Amino acid sequence: MRILLYRGDGVIEPWARDFAAALPHAETVVWRENMSLASQPPCDYAVVWAPTPQLLDQLAHVKAIFLMGAGVDALLKFGDALPHVPIVRLGDAGMAEQMAEYVAYATLRYFRRFDDYEQQARQGIWNPLETRRRKADFTVGVLGLGKLGMPVLRTLRQLGFPVRGWSRSPKDVPGVPCFAGMDELGDFLSGTQVLVCMLPLTPETTNLLDRAHLSQLPEGAYVINVARGALLAEPDLLALIRAGHIAGATLDVFRNEPLPAPHPFWNEPRITITPHISALTLREEAVRQIAAKIGKLERGEAIDDIVDRARGY
Amino acid sequence: MRILLYRGDGVIEPWARDFAAALPHAETVVWRENMSLASQPPCDYAVVWAPTPQLLDQLAHVKAIFLMGAGVDALLKFGDALPHVPIVRLGDAGMAEQMAEYVAYATLRYFRRFDDYEQQARQGIWNPLETRRRKADFTVGVLGLGKLGMPVLRTLRQLGFPVRGWSRSPKDVPGVPCFAGMDELGDFLSGTQVLVCMLPLTPETTNLLDRAHLSQLPEGAYVINVARGALLAEPDLLALIRAGHIAGATLDVFRNEPLPAPHPFWNEPRITITPHISALTLREEAVRQIAAKIGKLERGEAIDDIVDRARGY
Ligand SMILES: NC(=O)c1ccc[n+]([C@@H]2O[C@H](COP(=O)([O-])OP(=O)(O)OC[C@H]3O[C@@H](n4cnc5c(N)ncnc54)[C@H](OP(=O)(O)O)[C@@H]3O)[C@@H](O)[C@H]2O)c1
Ligand SMILES: NC(=O)c1ccc[n+]([C@@H]2O[C@H](COP(=O)([O-])OP(=O)(O)OC[C@H]3O[C@@H](n4cnc5c(N)ncnc54)[C@H](OP(=O)(O)O)[C@@H]3O)[C@@H](O)[C@H]2O)c1
Repeated sequence: MRILLYRGDGVIEPWARDFAAALPHAETVVWRENMSLASQPPCDYAVVWAPTPQLLDQLAHVKAIFLMGAGVDALLKFGDALPHVPIVRLGDAGMAEQMAEYVAYATLRYFRRFDDYEQQARQGIWNPLETRRRKADFTVGVLGLGKLGMPVLRTLRQLGFPVRGWSRSPKDVPGVPCFAGMDELGDFLSGTQVLVCMLPLTPETTNLLDRAHLSQLPEGAYVINVARGALLAEPDLLALIRAGHIAGATLDVFRNEPLPAPHPFWNEPRITITPHISALTLREEAVRQIAAKIGKLERGEAIDDIVDRARGY
Repeated sequence: MRILLYRGDGVIEPWARDFAAALPHAETVVWRENMSLASQPPCDYAVVWAPTPQLLDQLAHVKAIFLMGAGVDALLKFGDALPHVPIVRLGDAGMAEQMAEYVAYATLRYFRRFDDYEQQARQGIWNPLETRRRKADFTVGVLGLGKLGMPVLRTLRQLGFPVRGWSRSPKDVPGVPCFAGMDELGDFLSGTQVLVCMLPLTPETTNLLDRAHLSQLPEGAYVINVARGALLAEPDLLALIRAGHIAGATLDVFRNEPLPAPHPFWNEPRITITPHISALTLREEAVRQIAAKIGKLERGEAIDDIVDRARGY
């Protein structure tokens, strides 16, 4: 069995080593830009991240394409140029816990005004701030109730925040108001104090967080985006923060990454920026998961996490 | 029934209003510095915070002294000058949840390197940092397993951190290594990556976190103090941070508050300072609790939260 490996960021050696160890009978083939594999026997599987169009030519004969992450937008954007084989995303693989940590941190930071206290401390100011915000007024609304969104919602709930969720198909979570579809988005937003975006990027969700939708949040709401930058209309968010309607945002993802130096987000103190680190792929865990799935496919067994191309995630 | 009210910070009016509403048959007497109540009928109860020596003279005839907070050090320090009546601390009254929020925030901040990311972002730097720290290596050790320490431990455990605890008397918490007494403090410290101090300030605990004990933490450990400033030998902590043995600290309490302007903590970037806000007394909840206890005493019933003077907490 031959397994093609590629990462757009070039950091492929440790992956090749781990796959060789996890699948000792397989041959791992590291693909690099401009490399043709035409003279070699075809690969059975591909394991990729941030693919290039050129790579697609090498995938004609594979039995499945595995992604080294949870988001599939960077692959599905190639549309009909993709071979008609199963595309398999990474399951949770330790990312949900990281996301929950990130969102808990960002929510507590805003709720308890730690951002303000840090700013004061940098100026040597000792000043206990006004009355504590009431938790009952701090509903955290999670957009996307999938593999990552659901554990995030659970963690915030455990921390005592009222929570609510929004997804495509209706969900039934005891004690949690759940909203579904565009028809119910307005109701969801109007009762959300801290908006957490955990949606996949699809044609339907691109620019979902634009001026029209962000304006439906109550005044003083806070935005946390840990999914994909293109879900958010960046100038609209900035305008609403400057107008005072949105109190601030913690953003881990952006339209263009790294966030370009002249981007106005850098100079807006009410926006906290992290460099796409909210949930890192844990290589060991990912290799173990993908190797196990390859084993199942080889034995003719069903596997989880196959992407629905029509849905886009 | 007459109830004497006093707060060292002077913010007493809203308390007087709330007590009048909660105990409509009682007369509330607001005491202020230099005021003698000699010519008035004696008070039955006192509800105080940050008392002065002068106030003690007014307390000779009360049946019990209630504190508007959980810490009793500021009252017990008067020793034999105190009347021999029950001293009653505030129970949890919403403080445990706030403490858990604070400690969860400070722990996640250090664990996920959000402090470093903030510093980078202020300089416009996009730089995903080195491999993720492993949660299994991040044992959070809680000093003090009382009304506030135990819920803090529970919350950190729910967030997936390995936890351990230390107290005076042995505790049995399923799945949590618990240590007790000075004999076991060294073992507790040597396996603690994030040290959370939730102890009351007593003669035994004053300066407990000195060079000798802090040095028993593993290299790179982090310190969170949310109890009382005098538990910590401030110059010792600073020296160990500068020497690189302690990675940093988040401190909410200090020997002298407000933390004086020339204090070296202000200029140490590895120390995060908040102005004693980790757990605020929630007035509504506190008044409800104290009023209920007064009711019980009047009916001759037993109440919780009576301070053990010999123990000091
Ligand atoms: N920043 C990072 O480091 C990082 C790391 C990992 C992942 N991510 C991002 O996080 C995203 C979510 O991951 P996941 O594993 O939780 O995905 P998932 O399991 O596929 O769940 C997606 C959720 O979004 C909902 N959804 C999708 N399209 C929708 C629409 N048009 N309207 C309403 N709801 C819609 C789905 O609804 P149904 O339940 O009805 O299907 C589902 O609840 C990924 O796609 C990826 O882009 C970011
Ligand atoms: N920063 C703030 O805003 C703020 C707000 C509220 C409270 N506080 C501080 O937090 C402190 C703790 O509050 P709490 O309600 O949790 O107190 P608590 O219920 O009385 O519990 C105290 C804990 O500390 C342990 N302990 C006491 N002396 C000890 C010693 N010499 N050696 C080992 N363990 C010892 C006790 O052990 P045992 O279980 O064996 O008795 C107990 O587990 C308060 O005293 C107060 O100073 C700070």
